[in-house]
Amino acid sequence: MSEKKVPFDKELLYKISQREGTPFYIYDGKAIVDNFERFKKAFSWNSDFRNYFAVKALPNLNILKMLGERGSGSDCSSLPELKLSKEAGITGERIMFTSNDTPNEEFIEAYRLNAIINLDDITHINALESAIKGFPETISFRYNPGKERTGNVFIGNPVEAKYGVTKDQLFDCYKIAKQKGAKHFYLHTMVASCELKRDFIVQTANSLFSLVKKIYDETGIRIEGVDLGGGIGIPYTPDAEEMNLELLSKEIKELYDRIIVKNGLAPLKVFFECGRMITGPYGYLVTKVRHVCHKYKDYVGLDACMADLMRPALYGAYHHITVLGKENEIKDHKYDVTGSLCENNDKFAIDRPLCKIEKGDMLVIHDAGAHAHAMGFNYNAKLRSPEFLVNPDGDILKIRRRETFEDYVAPQLFNPEKLEF
Amino acid sequence: MSEKKVPFDKELLYKISQREGTPFYIYDGKAIVDNFERFKKAFSWNSDFRNYFAVKALPNLNILKMLGERGSGSDCSSLPELKLSKEAGITGERIMFTSNDTPNEEFIEAYRLNAIINLDDITHINALESAIKGFPETISFRYNPGKERTGNVFIGNPVEAKYGVTKDQLFDCYKIAKQKGAKHFYLHTMVASCELKRDFIVQTANSLFSLVKKIYDETGIRIEGVDLGGGIGIPYTPDAEEMNLELLSKEIKELYDRIIVKNGLAPLKVFFECGRMITGPYGYLVTKVRHVCHKYKDYVGLDACMADLMRPALYGAYHHITVLGKENEIKDHKYDVTGSLCENNDKFAIDRPLCKIEKGDMLVIHDAGAHAHAMGFNYNAKLRSPEFLVNPDGDILKIRRRETFEDYVAPQLFNPEKLEF
Repeated sequence: MSEKKVPFDKELLYKISQREGTPFYIYDGKAIVDNFERFKKAFSWNSDFRNYFAVKALPNLNILKMLGERGSGSDCSSLPELKLSKEAGITGERIMFTSNDTPNEEFIEAYRLNAIINLDDITHINALESAIKGFPETISFRYNPGKERTGNVFIGNPVEAKYGVTKDQLFDCYKIAKQKGAKHFYLHTMVASCELKRDFIVQTANSLFSLVKKIYDETGIRIEGVDLGGGIGIPYTPDAEEMNLELLSKEIKELYDRIIVKNGLAPLKVFFECGRMITGPYGYLVTKVRHVCHKYKDYVGLDACMADLMRPALYGAYHHITVLGKENEIKDHKYDVTGSLCENNDKFAIDRPLCKIEKGDMLVIHDAGAHAHAMGFNYNAKLRSPEFLVNPDGDILKIRRRETFEDYVAPQLFNPEKLEF
Repeated sequence: MSEKKVPFDKELLYKISQREGTPFYIYDGKAIVDNFERFKKAFSWNSDFRNYFAVKALPNLNILKMLGERGSGSDCSSLPELKLSKEAGITGERIMFTSNDTPNEEFIEAYRLNAIINLDDITHINALESAIKGFPETISFRYNPGKERTGNVFIGNPVEAKYGVTKDQLFDCYKIAKQKGAKHFYLHTMVASCELKRDFIVQTANSLFSLVKKIYDETGIRIEGVDLGGGIGIPYTPDAEEMNLELLSKEIKELYDRIIVKNGLAPLKVFFECGRMITGPYGYLVTKVRHVCHKYKDYVGLDACMADLMRPALYGAYHHITVLGKENEIKDHKYDVTGSLCENNDKFAIDRPLCKIEKGDMLVIHDAGAHAHAMGFNYNAKLRSPEFLVNPDGDILKIRRRETFEDYVAPQLFNPEKLEF
C-alpha cells in the first residue's frame, strides 16, 4: 500500500505554475537518487553490480548526469540515446547498447564509445563486424527463451517477440564471436515489463545463471556478467506493493551461490537495466483544470493531454491523481479526467472518484517519472511540457523548456526545396 | 477492391533514397488534388459545400497550401494548427475551429482569424465570451447525440464521449448564443471515424438535418450550415471498397430536399471535415530492409519504426506493403515486419505473406497520407522522417527535412536554469 503523496510544497508548485505555466513535469531528485542507492546497496554482495538506466524511460540529460555521477550505467538503443549518454558523461562499459534492428552507424558509435554491444540476432555478428571493420573484445547476446518462458502481460510472449537469439543459436553465437576475437562475454534477456511479482524476476536470474553454466559446459566460454533486463515494476495503484529489492537480492544471491559459485563460475557481474523502477514513482505531471463539464457524464478538462502522458490512453494505465489543496476532501464525485486532444481516448482517468473539482484547480498526476514525457507526441500539433528537477540539494532546476510553435515547425520547409535529378 | 500500386517511378524512389536516405514519406499531390476536386464536385448541388481539411491528419504547411489554393477549409483544434492554417493562407470562415477543452488563447486566436468557432460545451459559451470580451457573430455547436447514435468502432460510444453538448443542452446553447449577439449559426457532430459504410454517414446527415428543423421550430433560429464531421474512411485492406462519394452525395441530397428544402430551410451549407479521406491513400512511407532474421519466427527489420507510423502498433491497423521491384514475385514467405524501437509492438505487419525479402530491399507502406507522420513520437529518441511532395505539376519538393539530434534536444537545458523565488 503506497500513500501517493505529493512530496513538494504546494506553494512551490503554485509558484512554478505562475511563472512557467502549466502543465509541467517535476521530478524529485533526492528520491530518485535514494532509490538508486537503495538498489545498489541491496545488491552490494555482487561487487560489480550495476544498473544500466534505460534512457528511453526518461531521456533527460540532467537526470542522466545525476544518475551517472553516482555510478549508474545507461541502457541505450538508438544513436541519439548514445549521444545523450556520452553528453551525460556515461561512456565505456557503463553503456549497454541493447541493439535491435541496428543500423551501421549505431554499431560504429557504440563501438567508438567502448559500450558493451548486446547483439539481438545471430546475423548481427556479421553486421557488426562489417560495420566496424573488426570485432569488439567485449560482446553480449540477448537471449530469447522462446517457449521456456511465458513473458508477462506487458511484454508479451517470447515466442512472438522480435527480440533476441534462440536457445539453439545462442551457443553458436558465442563460439563465432570468440572466433572473431571477442574475449569478454555477457548474456542478457528481457522477458518482463512492469512486473511486480518477485518470482518472475528471480526466475529470470535462475534461467540466465543456468545458461552461464551450460554455455561454459558446452563451449568453454566463461560469461563475465548477466544482464537480467529491466522490467521491475512500480505500484501505480495505491493498493499495489512495490518490489522488495532486499528480498529480491537475497533470493537471487541464493541462486548465485548455488549455480554460479558452486560451479566455480564466480565472479559473475549482475546487471539490471531498470528505468521505470528508478525514476517512475518520482515524476509528477502538474496540470490545471480548464473546464468542468456535464454532458452524459461529468468531465474535468485539463491543460495536459495525451501528448504529455500517453499511458492511460494507450494502455488504460492507472495513474493516481491528487487535487492540490483538497487532499482531505471526500471523494464523492466521479469524473472522466480528459485532455484537450481531438481524440476520444485522450483521458487520464475514467469514472475516477474524486472530490468536487472546480475550474482552476491544480491536479498532480503521479508516477509520471518514466515512459511518460518520453512518449509524448505532437499529434494535433500539441506542444510538449517543460521539465523541472528538484535536485538532491533542493535546488529547483528547469531542465527542459516548454516546446514552442517554432520547435514544432522547425523541420518543415516553408519554402520547399525542389529536387532535381 | 483497390489495387495498392505505387504511383511513382521506382527509379525516383531509389534516387530520393540515395540522396536523402530512408525512411521518408512521399505524397502524390495530383492524386490528393484530384480526390479533393472529386469530393467538391460530388456535392456541387450544395453551392456552399466545403470540406474543412482536418489539419491533424497531415499538418504540413505545403499540403495545406495546396489544398487551400483550391478552396479547401481547415479544421483546427489547437493554437499551432490555427497558426499553420493562417500561414497556409486559410483564414476567416474557411477555418472551422473545433474546440475541445479549450484555453483562452485559442478562443482569442480563432476569433482574431474570424474562424467559425465550434463550441464543445454549454459552459464554453461563457468561457468564450470572457476570453474574447464579447461574442462572435458566427457560432457553431458540436452536438453529441448520446444514446441516439451508437458511434462506430473507431470513435466509440457517444454516451461515453467527452465531446459535444447533449440534446437537452443544444437548444439552450443556441438561445443563449443569440442573446449574446450571435447572428449566424452552425451545427456540427462527429460520431464516426474511418467509416466505410455509407449508411452511417447518411444517417448523420439525417440526424443533423432533422435537428436543424427542430431547432428552428423550437427556437426560431435558422441554422446556416451543418458540419457532418469527418470520419469517411479509406480502404486500407486490398479487399475493402472506398466510399462512393457520388452515391453518398445523392443520398444526402435526397434527405436535404426532403427535410431542408421542403420545410423552407434552404439554403443550408453542407460541410465535412475529412482529413483521412482526402490525403490518406496518397501518402507512402518508403523504407529499407536492414536485417532479415530468423528467430522463433521470421522477421524483416526496417529502418522505419513506430515513430514513423504508429497505426499498426497502436490499433493493429493493416497497412499494405509493396516490395519495390518484386511486385510480381510469389508471396510464399511469411514475415513479421518490424521497426527498431525497443518495444515489442513495434511491428508494421504480423505474419504477412510477402515474397522472399533480402537486406537492402526497399518497401513501400501504403495509405500513410493521414494520421501517419502526424502521430510520430520521439520515444527511444527516434528522429522523425522527412516528407516529399510530388506536386500536381510533377515537381519533387522536399517539404520537411529529417529531424536531427539537435532538434530532438533543442528544448533540453544542458545548463539548467535555477529558479529562485
